Amino acid sequence: MIVLMKVNPSPEHVQMMVDRIEKMGLKAHVIHGTERVVIAAVGDKRDGNKEALESYDEVDKVMPILAPYKIASVEIKPEPTVIKVRDLIIGGGNVGVIAGPCSVESEEQIMESARRVKVAGAKGLRGGAFKPRTSPYSFQGMKEEGLKLLAAARDETGLAVVTEVMTPHHVELVTAYADVLQIGARNMQNYHLLQAVGEVRKPVMLKRGASATMDEFLLAAEYILDQGNQEVILCERGVRTFETHTRFTLPLASVPYLKQRTHLPIVIDPSHGTGVASLVPPMCTAAVAAGADGLIIEVHPDPPNAASDGAQSLTPDAFDAVMEQCRKVANALDLTM
Amino acid sequence: MIVLMKVNPSPEHVQMMVDRIEKMGLKAHVIHGTERVVIAAVGDKRDGNKEALESYDEVDKVMPILAPYKIASVEIKPEPTVIKVRDLIIGGGNVGVIAGPCSVESEEQIMESARRVKVAGAKGLRGGAFKPRTSPYSFQGMKEEGLKLLAAARDETGLAVVTEVMTPHHVELVTAYADVLQIGARNMQNYHLLQAVGEVRKPVMLKRGASATMDEFLLAAEYILDQGNQEVILCERGVRTFETHTRFTLPLASVPYLKQRTHLPIVIDPSHGTGVASLVPPMCTAAVAAGADGLIIEVHPDPPNAASDGAQSLTPDAFDAVMEQCRKVANALDLTM
Amino acid sequence: MIVLMKVNPSPEHVQMMVDRIEKMGLKAHVIHGTERVVIAAVGDKRDGNKEALESYDEVDKVMPILAPYKIASVEIKPEPTVIKVRDLIIGGGNVGVIAGPCSVESEEQIMESARRVKVAGAKGLRGGAFKPRTSPYSFQGMKEEGLKLLAAARDETGLAVVTEVMTPHHVELVTAYADVLQIGARNMQNYHLLQAVGEVRKPVMLKRGASATMDEFLLAAEYILDQGNQEVILCERGVRTFETHTRFTLPLASVPYLKQRTHLPIVIDPSHGTGVASLVPPMCTAAVAAGADGLIIEVHPDPPNAASDGAQSLTPDAFDAVMEQCRKVANALDLTM
Amino acid sequence: MIVLMKVNPSPEHVQMMVDRIEKMGLKAHVIHGTERVVIAAVGDKRDGNKEALESYDEVDKVMPILAPYKIASVEIKPEPTVIKVRDLIIGGGNVGVIAGPCSVESEEQIMESARRVKVAGAKGLRGGAFKPRTSPYSFQGMKEEGLKLLAAARDETGLAVVTEVMTPHHVELVTAYADVLQIGARNMQNYHLLQAVGEVRKPVMLKRGASATMDEFLLAAEYILDQGNQEVILCERGVRTFETHTRFTLPLASVPYLKQRTHLPIVIDPSHGTGVASLVPPMCTAAVAAGADGLIIEVHPDPPNAASDGAQSLTPDAFDAVMEQCRKVANALDLTM
Repeated sequence: MIVLMKVNPSPEHVQMMVDRIEKMGLKAHVIHGTERVVIAAVGDKRDGNKEALESYDEVDKVMPILAPYKIASVEIKPEPTVIKVRDLIIGGGNVGVIAGPCSVESEEQIMESARRVKVAGAKGLRGGAFKPRTSPYSFQGMKEEGLKLLAAARDETGLAVVTEVMTPHHVELVTAYADVLQIGARNMQNYHLLQAVGEVRKPVMLKRGASATMDEFLLAAEYILDQGNQEVILCERGVRTFETHTRFTLPLASVPYLKQRTHLPIVIDPSHGTGVASLVPPMCTAAVAAGADGLIIEVHPDPPNAASDGAQSLTPDAFDAVMEQCRKVANALDLTM
Repeated sequence: MIVLMKVNPSPEHVQMMVDRIEKMGLKAHVIHGTERVVIAAVGDKRDGNKEALESYDEVDKVMPILAPYKIASVEIKPEPTVIKVRDLIIGGGNVGVIAGPCSVESEEQIMESARRVKVAGAKGLRGGAFKPRTSPYSFQGMKEEGLKLLAAARDETGLAVVTEVMTPHHVELVTAYADVLQIGARNMQNYHLLQAVGEVRKPVMLKRGASATMDEFLLAAEYILDQGNQEVILCERGVRTFETHTRFTLPLASVPYLKQRTHLPIVIDPSHGTGVASLVPPMCTAAVAAGADGLIIEVHPDPPNAASDGAQSLTPDAFDAVMEQCRKVANALDLTM
Repeated sequence: MIVLMKVNPSPEHVQMMVDRIEKMGLKAHVIHGTERVVIAAVGDKRDGNKEALESYDEVDKVMPILAPYKIASVEIKPEPTVIKVRDLIIGGGNVGVIAGPCSVESEEQIMESARRVKVAGAKGLRGGAFKPRTSPYSFQGMKEEGLKLLAAARDETGLAVVTEVMTPHHVELVTAYADVLQIGARNMQNYHLLQAVGEVRKPVMLKRGASATMDEFLLAAEYILDQGNQEVILCERGVRTFETHTRFTLPLASVPYLKQRTHLPIVIDPSHGTGVASLVPPMCTAAVAAGADGLIIEVHPDPPNAASDGAQSLTPDAFDAVMEQCRKVANALDLTM
Repeated sequence: MIVLMKVNPSPEHVQMMVDRIEKMGLKAHVIHGTERVVIAAVGDKRDGNKEALESYDEVDKVMPILAPYKIASVEIKPEPTVIKVRDLIIGGGNVGVIAGPCSVESEEQIMESARRVKVAGAKGLRGGAFKPRTSPYSFQGMKEEGLKLLAAARDETGLAVVTEVMTPHHVELVTAYADVLQIGARNMQNYHLLQAVGEVRKPVMLKRGASATMDEFLLAAEYILDQGNQEVILCERGVRTFETHTRFTLPLASVPYLKQRTHLPIVIDPSHGTGVASLVPPMCTAAVAAGADGLIIEVHPDPPNAASDGAQSLTPDAFDAVMEQCRKVANALDLTM
């Protein structure tokens, strides 16, 4: 950490800060600038004392040096993590595509969805059985019945099932049916849930919270990794900004940024990232071109009659076209899709 | 809802939309503007079909009319809800003050905190026993031991205990010790947790998520109310914006806005709202002047040695001064504090 | 416009609003919903009376229907506007690339930059002679001397010169040297400047303000178009959000959104959009894949010694690689580059 | 500056960076941490080389130490700047109130406004003669005719006239009529305009840009101060965030934050800060309680017929009530109003 003292500290104050830093088990280096005094506090502490140091009256601010996450970082594991489950491969030059409806609504709907996305080239099937909904009056999902339908769709198509788990109490149940457990954006900092899926031995797709910083996102992944589950897929699904013409703002620069910091693969969700079906296709090709390790896309056989997220769901025909365009881009950039 | 058709719809398309709207059980009124066609869809549906209508190709956008929440709204209950628990009164012209450390750390620390904030005039004692922390490597709270210390502090001082519950599984335990259950900002959309505290018969303080809209905030309250718990306190604790000189941006206009929409009382948290102890006092007086029904303030006997949130915690002496200033403002505006 | 009345208006209040709306020259249609009353105000007014109607006590809110811009809209001119200046073609399936240093610093620097970006395939040369700098103590540009150097670089290479004009008083001077006048993000709502460049008969590249909505962006273009200059290029350069790991957040969904609303071409600036040189290349390929009509990229022969924006400037070698990757994507998607 | 090297730099790279830093005229202190190497670059350079250093491949990031502004800072001038013009006093324990319509519309309208706000206790009269409007089709102000009407209102009431200047070319004209020149939020980084008003010897009220950081805001003030005009009033008028229930989000914590950093007085604009007349009164009292040195409030004799900003304008009667409440708060806190 770098401790910036307030203007014109007395030598006594500087010495007091040095003593406090050393009491924390850190080494203190005092640097006298032309106008300010800074103290570098050296040691392996992951900046856990930032808050404490910042609360001294004599301190202006404290700047952390080390990234707060460890297991997720490229410094610990330089080679990229590749997730393989059934035919779905995410990372390592493979663009894995997961597609399907927002919610599982009926046998017919999920089967039709699964068949169509499979033919188009998807390797994973999405579909919510437990649905976190902003309003208590909205459709809340088919629950276990929905999980059974997802499993049936997998049995027929071979697609890997990706579905959300909302609360620690359901982890065992969802794990029994799913191939990949999804943690939704609203639950990115639901730490008991993160710890619960950290104990499972199936991959977890962690969605970025709508206003999470990159450090917060990677620390949420760290909660899972720290429990021993090394198969974490990061998912960028857009952040909340002042923009209202899209549901969220989708920052594709997250892809190269994360690749510089973490070995975990990164998937893009252009459906939530835009919230508008007509904007999804160009964001799919753009995500592939940005180097994303996968895509998760909402596809519904009949969007206007979807129980949720109709406005951002592609029809199966539109999805066919998206896959064709994405494959062109992937091929051009020597990626497998 | 108001359905805006795309430019120059054919009469057949307009008729199709009318048929769809009526099939939803709504009445359709077509209005031909000079350049655009809109269809007003009338009926008691809380705009649940917005998404569905928006997914038709012929539709440009759908604008909701009704607020999506009901039980929380002033239309259902015009008289303000006042929360009374022990000597803490929030709402109805009373400014209830809750103060104490971020985390319970030791018997001495919580007792000292409780005594000092009590003398200064607080009626509630805050203190986290279960702590949601961004990093898995940070102090996670004293858990049940912390709850016991809070109860002991209440026994001595009579202060009402306000403490966080993080997961449905802990609701029973925390309810056994707390007077007010707190739902943290990270869990504002943890729906299983909201439903669990909705079944309790103790007041719940619901903190606004860092990027929650007002509708989302009130819908989260609605999840609690809908389970039968009518004692919900809303807490504005700042939103995430581009500003970095404060930890969050504290929008005090939330107070009058919410008072126009909901009967629930609204409390301000200037400690998280700024993240900087020296900015807390003026935000406390400002919150009282804005009409807040209460304040929740972090106070620690020794901020630099706090296990969490030291940089935003007031010393007991600073809290004394804050209370004095706030009381002046409250008196001037005929509020009880 | 749709005027939403407050809850339970009296018949007299509804009639008063009808009268007011009709006095504005609009037709009023009253719709009685189950809980609310709305009045549709029909007429060709571009919602100029929104504010006035919203200020009546009886009104809850007013929702505009018509887009506030006209000349910029696809409704007025459905065919895309293509900008051609020297060999630079922006739009109509052509991806025009403009590259060069942030600032013109010396003859050697701008000549070297021009030669290298030309060889790599750029058709436009960027370079600031008048520099808007956040600090008054930063390098403010070479001014007219810089314009002369840009013109000399054009004479040698044939590249079209794109350079910023900061104040109405300089429009004549800059127009004498530039092929395309750039309006910077900070000046997007400098209306006197917009009107001044609207009177010129050279293309204008208008950068989106860091917190401008799409309507505000298109209305700024409308100021230029309204003066008779039909050659406006829109440039998305990132918006200000809570994210700090990039300088701005680059929303590539702006490309397809704008293409649905306006005939004006849209160029992406990944240099300002990320602020980090290592993130620029993937954002270039992503922008091409998203359908951008052009790119504007900062390239400097010696970034660490750049007078401005060194951290986000590519070296000429890195730019060569970017162009190669972008061309692959463009070819795959049948675009000309 | 603190230069953070990338992980595991070679001793040669560290030495190269030291050489570069020393070539810039700074002293380099190398600190070897347990995992990272940082180099403190010491010298009086206001961090102008941050960008350059950040562009080296070996550098992870560069953290500035010194605030980038000088003349505006409390370090240069610890005593608060108080602005006095006619009876309007802003700062030094005085809460100066400026009120009036958004735009000057007619003699009757501005005279009526001036008389009413004067009686209520305002000491300044606001009113736009040159209006920056988002749309080219909106009312653009009465221009010089409006300035004359403002001057006439001053002659009758003695109120100090505060009015906007939009372009350098108008500075002389507006200065001839105004007592305080206002720079609007859209022009906060219009540097030619800032320099032009910096040459005037009348106070300037500088509004914060809707997405300006505090450093950018103070650097904009620095442009004015640097030209020799020491009378700058800062005005917080709300920032653009994801919130849509208010026009902007008004961060009152700006008041104490700025008071810690600058000697310049700070005024709050709750009219633009909320955009909703019914939210203005509590934000006025809150601003006074937060320690603001002044308020600027939109008041119109007939808001529904205002040419601009009707929805956020108070009636004269509402303004009377606001002033009464504010005075109560000011008295309670020993402020003069």
